[in-house]
Amino acid sequence: METILILGGFGFIGTNIIKYIDSHYSNTYRIIVFDRVAQHPHGIKFCSVCKTYSGDFSDETSINRIFDENKIDYVIHLISATCPTNSSNPQYDIEANLIPTIKLLQLMVKYSVKHIIFISSGGAIYGDTAENTCHTENDATFPISSYGIIKLTIEKYIILFSKINNMIPLILRLSNPYGPYHYSDKQGIVNVALRHAINNKPIQIWGDGSAEKDYIYIYDFVRILLTLMQHKHKNTIYNIASGYVLSVNAIIDAIKTFVPTIQCSYTKSNVNDVQHVTLSTKRLEDEIGHFKFTEFSEGLSKTYTWLLSQKIN
Amino acid sequence: METILILGGFGFIGTNIIKYIDSHYSNTYRIIVFDRVAQHPHGIKFCSVCKTYSGDFSDETSINRIFDENKIDYVIHLISATCPTNSSNPQYDIEANLIPTIKLLQLMVKYSVKHIIFISSGGAIYGDTAENTCHTENDATFPISSYGIIKLTIEKYIILFSKINNMIPLILRLSNPYGPYHYSDKQGIVNVALRHAINNKPIQIWGDGSAEKDYIYIYDFVRILLTLMQHKHKNTIYNIASGYVLSVNAIIDAIKTFVPTIQCSYTKSNVNDVQHVTLSTKRLEDEIGHFKFTEFSEGLSKTYTWLLSQKIN
Repeated sequence: METILILGGFGFIGTNIIKYIDSHYSNTYRIIVFDRVAQHPHGIKFCSVCKTYSGDFSDETSINRIFDENKIDYVIHLISATCPTNSSNPQYDIEANLIPTIKLLQLMVKYSVKHIIFISSGGAIYGDTAENTCHTENDATFPISSYGIIKLTIEKYIILFSKINNMIPLILRLSNPYGPYHYSDKQGIVNVALRHAINNKPIQIWGDGSAEKDYIYIYDFVRILLTLMQHKHKNTIYNIASGYVLSVNAIIDAIKTFVPTIQCSYTKSNVNDVQHVTLSTKRLEDEIGHFKFTEFSEGLSKTYTWLLSQKIN
Repeated sequence: METILILGGFGFIGTNIIKYIDSHYSNTYRIIVFDRVAQHPHGIKFCSVCKTYSGDFSDETSINRIFDENKIDYVIHLISATCPTNSSNPQYDIEANLIPTIKLLQLMVKYSVKHIIFISSGGAIYGDTAENTCHTENDATFPISSYGIIKLTIEKYIILFSKINNMIPLILRLSNPYGPYHYSDKQGIVNVALRHAINNKPIQIWGDGSAEKDYIYIYDFVRILLTLMQHKHKNTIYNIASGYVLSVNAIIDAIKTFVPTIQCSYTKSNVNDVQHVTLSTKRLEDEIGHFKFTEFSEGLSKTYTWLLSQKIN
């Protein structure tokens, strides 16, 4: 069995990865979770998780201890101390995200850990997309937030360290995931809007709701991640997007079919938020073949069902 | 008159900029120099320099004081605490170069300084160039050193701050300058090799000497910089290169015509050094028209004459 260290394993993406491994790869992988908290904040139990470490990502000794006590094969790095809309303090972005990631890479070299998987951002890195085009992984990048700049800088350091030390990096520029096990109120319009609608809370929308982005059901992303992990992938960076590009208003309309009483308030557009971004997934398709993504209405329905089962306020 | 603050003004590029302003623009610009030292380390005097501040770039209060005591129109940022071949400590690169630059940008916002000119790197940002191609400013970037990553990250923050705060940025991705007032032993193969040859010291060459780069006479660069500064330039980023792409061996051969006794020793190739990089200057030409660059043999001859006049050991 191989051991995966998941940094930030109890967040939205991490929980879904572990759930999927529990169901499909529990004989292939054992998981070690590092998170701010010592157990899943919503009490979820996982059969693949053999150990949990809690601490602050910027505390190097916490991370060193994990490598010292365990033989790690893969690191999946999901930690981000900031999100696009709240990264107004570049120095904090650097100190909380960039420097700890460089120290992580140095520890991986020290302990000869070969595989690093980093979840980057398809939305925050490229900047706005011109009409009728979509971004490929080889495009120039114009991040419009400190969050995006730091994601990009981390990508560059991962590639640099990997080149010098023969590591095998996998960088996934993910569009906007939604689905079960999402508890944040800071980002993720689909989940936040659906949850607010269920709880009769108005939804605050930046701009006029016309901003269009790609939304991907989290289960699809996790399947792709595991496929790429087990594949001798030819490239380092992959865009991961479903092709379901929707405006915020279209999302609100879709939610209305489940919760007709949904209420919205529109506020000034956020300067850190892109207005329109679409990603080419040709490279991904060339690697794993055609992938049937979950239709938005189906993903939304499953998320709605999950939310009702949670009774989250 | 407008006031230019030159950060790192007493280095190679800074000295040449000030010399040129002394000769051609002393009625247009007054200059304030910030450097580690309070006067030019080789005793050069400048008529355009009205004030000098000395200190550490990472000490925010030193920089704040300059803006507090003077109305600045332009900032020319030339400081780099590292160079491509010695940037093996990413955290130092971040703390000595990136974070102080972000603090500089924050101060520029606070004091409403509109113009920032940053000298980036044409060699360290793009990575190696495929044969028969050259890099345009819109190409994807693959820096192969921490130095290059940080130059790129600084570019991104300058663009971000400028967008949010209506600043006017000018980013020059410079190839490899050589010429008078170069005193460093750490970088600049043309000057270092010529100086060693004159002083009968052997020259250490990484690899087999076949690595090809673009070399630009510093006086040409300074003329272009001043032209762009006084121009309502349409773009933010410009490659600045002469088109004289030479191998290290070709440089050594050229130096032989001045110093036939030149001696070289070849050592293992440096992983942080690119092997082949060429830059497209179409954008620059579209902006300022055709520019007649100094031929390499002529630039070398002038540099040789200057070096002899200095009797530097």
